[in-house]
Amino acid sequence: MATHALRRAALRTELADRELDALLVTDLLNVRYLTGFTGSNAALLVTGAEDSTLFCTDGRYTEQAATEVPDLRAVTSRQSAPALAELAIGRVGFDSAHVTVDGLDALGSVTRAELVRAAGLVERLRAVKDEVELAALRTACAIGDQAFADLLAAGGLVGRTELEVARDLEGRMVALGAEAPAFASIVAAGANSSIPHHRPTEAVLRTGDLLKLDFGAKVDGYHSDMTRTVALGRVADWQREVYDLVAQAQAAGCAALAPGVAGREVDRAARSVIEAAGRGEQFVHGLGHGVGLQVHEAPSLAATADGTLPAGVAVTVEPGVYLAGKGGVRIEDTLVVRDTGPEPLTLTTKQLLVV
Amino acid sequence: MATHALRRAALRTELADRELDALLVTDLLNVRYLTGFTGSNAALLVTGAEDSTLFCTDGRYTEQAATEVPDLRAVTSRQSAPALAELAIGRVGFDSAHVTVDGLDALGSVTRAELVRAAGLVERLRAVKDEVELAALRTACAIGDQAFADLLAAGGLVGRTELEVARDLEGRMVALGAEAPAFASIVAAGANSSIPHHRPTEAVLRTGDLLKLDFGAKVDGYHSDMTRTVALGRVADWQREVYDLVAQAQAAGCAALAPGVAGREVDRAARSVIEAAGRGEQFVHGLGHGVGLQVHEAPSLAATADGTLPAGVAVTVEPGVYLAGKGGVRIEDTLVVRDTGPEPLTLTTKQLLVV
Repeated sequence: MATHALRRAALRTELADRELDALLVTDLLNVRYLTGFTGSNAALLVTGAEDSTLFCTDGRYTEQAATEVPDLRAVTSRQSAPALAELAIGRVGFDSAHVTVDGLDALGSVTRAELVRAAGLVERLRAVKDEVELAALRTACAIGDQAFADLLAAGGLVGRTELEVARDLEGRMVALGAEAPAFASIVAAGANSSIPHHRPTEAVLRTGDLLKLDFGAKVDGYHSDMTRTVALGRVADWQREVYDLVAQAQAAGCAALAPGVAGREVDRAARSVIEAAGRGEQFVHGLGHGVGLQVHEAPSLAATADGTLPAGVAVTVEPGVYLAGKGGVRIEDTLVVRDTGPEPLTLTTKQLLVV
Repeated sequence: MATHALRRAALRTELADRELDALLVTDLLNVRYLTGFTGSNAALLVTGAEDSTLFCTDGRYTEQAATEVPDLRAVTSRQSAPALAELAIGRVGFDSAHVTVDGLDALGSVTRAELVRAAGLVERLRAVKDEVELAALRTACAIGDQAFADLLAAGGLVGRTELEVARDLEGRMVALGAEAPAFASIVAAGANSSIPHHRPTEAVLRTGDLLKLDFGAKVDGYHSDMTRTVALGRVADWQREVYDLVAQAQAAGCAALAPGVAGREVDRAARSVIEAAGRGEQFVHGLGHGVGLQVHEAPSLAATADGTLPAGVAVTVEPGVYLAGKGGVRIEDTLVVRDTGPEPLTLTTKQLLVV
């Protein structure tokens, strides 16, 4: 069975468990996951059988849908979700985490079906990546690694601005085949590196600065996400101390990744290293997050996270220590949770590089 | 008054008209428009007075919020919208076109306010661009123009694939200062150019093909959007005939842009040219759309569009004629509707270029 049909089959098991006759899928990323369709308007009605499952998009995408979704019956309408609601019967789930208040009114006004809340069904499937998804993630991570290596190899960072470096890095990723940067890159030099989500500015990189780069590439809709912190020209003792601590915490977090382990336990494994050094209050965010069609998706690796990790989830592990006004360090990899141990997709060294 | 405070003041007039004590703004683009905040988690409670208006984001963005939103009282919470709903009193509008069914439950469970539907208030303000926005749109359009000119000047298109050309064009835009491509570029050669929203493939560009390129740059969150169709090496009579027809329709659409004119009338002005040539059925989409913080936003220029154009809206005008299996032509500019006549932001020639 083709990839998308396999995913729809897995979803049907969830529908049966919930005694739903169908699920109306309206989030575009969920539609993409279940069909392969990449256009900007679509909905999907997954019924109990493949041959009554319906896909809807509008006239702009007729030819694209024929190519990308050759295996489903198609309906053409600009109002894709209501058009499918009109055809639905029985007990039909809708995604209350995506359907808006106005959107539910529009569905209710045209359908004879009983609309039932059913949030997060597709997202739960999406958390575990299949081989097609892992191939896209691997390529996205490899582009991040290569762009970073090329940036450092080109040299001459000192004297340039954060914005120039961000542009350079993003240009390299696109030239290497990324369809876009995965998100607005964080390039933070000197004291700015203490701001976890700093946006690049005209600040000039100087010798003695820590330089934190958090960036990724988007490939076939899948996002990579990595962070490295390098030292410019020389390393002060406090910089090396903080770096080594974060690297140790990051290694502990990665080592804790295993099927069946709670997300909060992975956070704890890394956080306890930083707390033991008396720097717990300087690690102000969660340890990591799932990554795939969204940069941030399930599961969460944080102190407040619920649930355990199944095999096959792709997550980031990204502890940081931030000294306000002085500088900060974050180190982040994307990895896949495997029975045989975590598989790193980010392959750049985690040694402190002085460039 | 600073730009964002002016926008909030304009919104307060809308609140007063609707007898609302406050508006809870939860869509991130609307929050960005009203505050300048660019992070990934935020909400805003616009009350009747500036000094009781509240902004909320989480701990990751504390320093960024202090820089980007120095002029508003701030609350820190990961659950930004519920945190503000908890503090709201009186008759409080929420955006039912953005708040999800689950999201409304979360707001209702913590607030003492009366939650009232109020969709589209900020979007209506956003349709009319102020000078800060027009500056970003101008830069974004200029990057599109320049990248296109550089692509053609570099030559050697024949023999490359659609994907290679798309990557080249997008790399040029990022190198010229775009924070990202505005959307996944359409590069469609030969028969593929008859697909309105074709995604680039491994198809090789050949002499005699029409090549359609629809692309744009994102600058400070604002999107440009342009399409040009060029001929590779030589032009067949049918290609020139279709091109001239689309160019004539595009000019008629642009000429119809004026304050007070209905969106559907602008569509009609262009569409009637194509219909008169007997090709009405080959123009399968609306004429254009507003463009700004979203690639597609209000107002719509289509046969089904409601409402008239105020001065200061930025729109695309993009008629096309598509001959299935043969090829198609689309020409698209971004323009601003002005009392003194439409101001084009896309400046690339609309002569048929043979390259």
